Amino acid sequence: MNFSPQLRTPGPTPIPERVQRAMAAPMINHRGPEFKALLADVVSGLQWAFQTSNDILVFPASGTGGMESAAANLLSPNERVLVPVIGAFGERFADLAEAFGAQVVRYGVPWGEAADPQDIDEILAKEPEITTVLVTHNETSTGVTNRLGEISQVVRRHGRLLVVDGVSSIGSIDLPVDSWGVDVAITASQKGWMAPPGLTMVSVSKAAWTRQGKATAPRFYFDWERARKMQAQGATFTTPAISIMFGVREALQMMRQESLPSIFRRHQRLAAAFRAAVGALGLRLLAQPEVASPTVTAVYLPEALQGDAGKDLLRTWREKYGLVVAGGQGHLTGKIFRIGHLGAVTEQDVVATASALEAGLRDHGHRFDAGAAVAAVEGVIRAPDTTLVA
Amino acid sequence: MNFSPQLRTPGPTPIPERVQRAMAAPMINHRGPEFKALLADVVSGLQWAFQTSNDILVFPASGTGGMESAAANLLSPNERVLVPVIGAFGERFADLAEAFGAQVVRYGVPWGEAADPQDIDEILAKEPEITTVLVTHNETSTGVTNRLGEISQVVRRHGRLLVVDGVSSIGSIDLPVDSWGVDVAITASQKGWMAPPGLTMVSVSKAAWTRQGKATAPRFYFDWERARKMQAQGATFTTPAISIMFGVREALQMMRQESLPSIFRRHQRLAAAFRAAVGALGLRLLAQPEVASPTVTAVYLPEALQGDAGKDLLRTWREKYGLVVAGGQGHLTGKIFRIGHLGAVTEQDVVATASALEAGLRDHGHRFDAGAAVAAVEGVIRAPDTTLVA
Repeated sequence: MNFSPQLRTPGPTPIPERVQRAMAAPMINHRGPEFKALLADVVSGLQWAFQTSNDILVFPASGTGGMESAAANLLSPNERVLVPVIGAFGERFADLAEAFGAQVVRYGVPWGEAADPQDIDEILAKEPEITTVLVTHNETSTGVTNRLGEISQVVRRHGRLLVVDGVSSIGSIDLPVDSWGVDVAITASQKGWMAPPGLTMVSVSKAAWTRQGKATAPRFYFDWERARKMQAQGATFTTPAISIMFGVREALQMMRQESLPSIFRRHQRLAAAFRAAVGALGLRLLAQPEVASPTVTAVYLPEALQGDAGKDLLRTWREKYGLVVAGGQGHLTGKIFRIGHLGAVTEQDVVATASALEAGLRDHGHRFDAGAAVAAVEGVIRAPDTTLVA
Repeated sequence: MNFSPQLRTPGPTPIPERVQRAMAAPMINHRGPEFKALLADVVSGLQWAFQTSNDILVFPASGTGGMESAAANLLSPNERVLVPVIGAFGERFADLAEAFGAQVVRYGVPWGEAADPQDIDEILAKEPEITTVLVTHNETSTGVTNRLGEISQVVRRHGRLLVVDGVSSIGSIDLPVDSWGVDVAITASQKGWMAPPGLTMVSVSKAAWTRQGKATAPRFYFDWERARKMQAQGATFTTPAISIMFGVREALQMMRQESLPSIFRRHQRLAAAFRAAVGALGLRLLAQPEVASPTVTAVYLPEALQGDAGKDLLRTWREKYGLVVAGGQGHLTGKIFRIGHLGAVTEQDVVATASALEAGLRDHGHRFDAGAAVAAVEGVIRAPDTTLVA
């Protein structure tokens, strides 16, 4: 055995031993007292991590299911909504709203850039009939974090409902749901929550509940009202993803021990370390530096290694060095690779990843100063942890 | 420690050690070669267990999600459908179809009875505008198995689409999808599949695909076409429930070793043993004996132990004897209890359950011949395995 596998995709993320052990507990009745306690622990832990006192609903589904729950519960046919599209998951949110009959105003920026809060301000001023803004916080396909604090101010000022895809941000990147006035925030277990995929978690504000009562899109599985009614009794409407909830409960305990500020800082540090490594390798970031994500780093493949050559490089990383990264999505397929660094990722992991990145690139003829990426990473992670920002 | 817990709910079911270990494998990339192999293993194993060459799609969701996928992909507003309602899950299927805009013809029978294929024949003859029949195979709320072989003949003769909720049947009760011509069959991981809840599996026939192309209900998360397109490439449309798929793959290997006929026979034997125990305890089955389920046995509480006293009895079983059974649903809440015996349940388990049933009932003053339930169970499981039928 030459390596332990390094899963550096932007979700699923590695599962810590503690979480694995928690998930191996004997199965329980989902209508009994043990489940009631499990649900209460998970919901209160999530309220802590979402920084909210809003209701939090859980569904057995991936993050897209949480996004669909927002569309199904908030929209009515021909409802006009704004979707800032900064990458593949913004596209997905727009497609989803359209599938549920909404008239979608797409505000697009080139992939690698963030949405401009001022543009959103102008669109909302011009289009008073837009009732809802569906926005990605952290765009996993491009490694860009939107300026959600500013966007939320704009949306609130215009009195529209704000729905946030926080799948790859909440729990890893600061998203204070209550103080920013986010009406609906959505995440999923396989990201910062250090658990397997299969659970989506959704916070719902008072204003969102009011809208839900009027919205007419068809809903059943993801119906928030049915979910809330059952959760109030300590159960769920349909059979819950119990083993994953065991895992998320344990992960939430680990997160409380670390504290939210420390978690956010750790993600910023590790992201800065990866960006330093990318520069040292003579590679180029997709994201504009000032909006580069603390959880995902997207990197252009060297010219000579795009397309099929890039596939070969990813295979070398995986098979020879145990490093699993993600490829590009949409029109960036074959042009970029993406490194995930969210959830259970440590400083040692970043050093090991930088070393594997070097080895694979060298094998494929890319030239750079040997040891440069590892040194760059070390430069960041050994520096005093005072001034780092996302 | 006086007992190991006996989870005898009709789902979730106990997870075998082999399955638990399989699920503790390191997390993998859902867009990589390991996942492609996992998906192929799971789909081919499910095709074997469903006895079908139809497409099988998997979604991160509970069984209700699989049912919703059928409604969202097959129905259009005001489509007329027939739902035989023999219990809570038939009600759920009808509610779900209504939520998606269908005109639902409900054909109800008293809880404890099965649908009469001749009634279905008459309804379909009288209502040519009914396009689709949505039927429960095994009704988990009442412990009744519908005569699906006969129902499927009727539905095929009338040329309507047949959608089957096989959540608590497929893999435990014979449901030969192809030979019975079932267009859509739905199940979920926490039943006979011996894995945690969170994965639903759906088989789709050619006729169902043709309908899907015309149906206009909104769909995105559960869209079969998006799912099929991605599965053809060895991936899934949204992030899959990887750990549960690890578990289902392992469980399918165990099932292949046992063989489908042996699995079905085992469930029939254990159900017969439980029914014998119920009789020996002087209790009454909810189900009519000729349609009593091989996977779930619903039992009337003694008169003196209905309502709150029944809650106390279930607590005694749980806390003093480690036996977890389910209560009643809908109007049977407080009137019945339900024993699940599907998936990883053995002869020893049935003996232990009978012993615990006796102990709890005795504690609560119910009178019967001491040892009668255990003896009745032994009488069935020690008998030659030749003539048992469901």
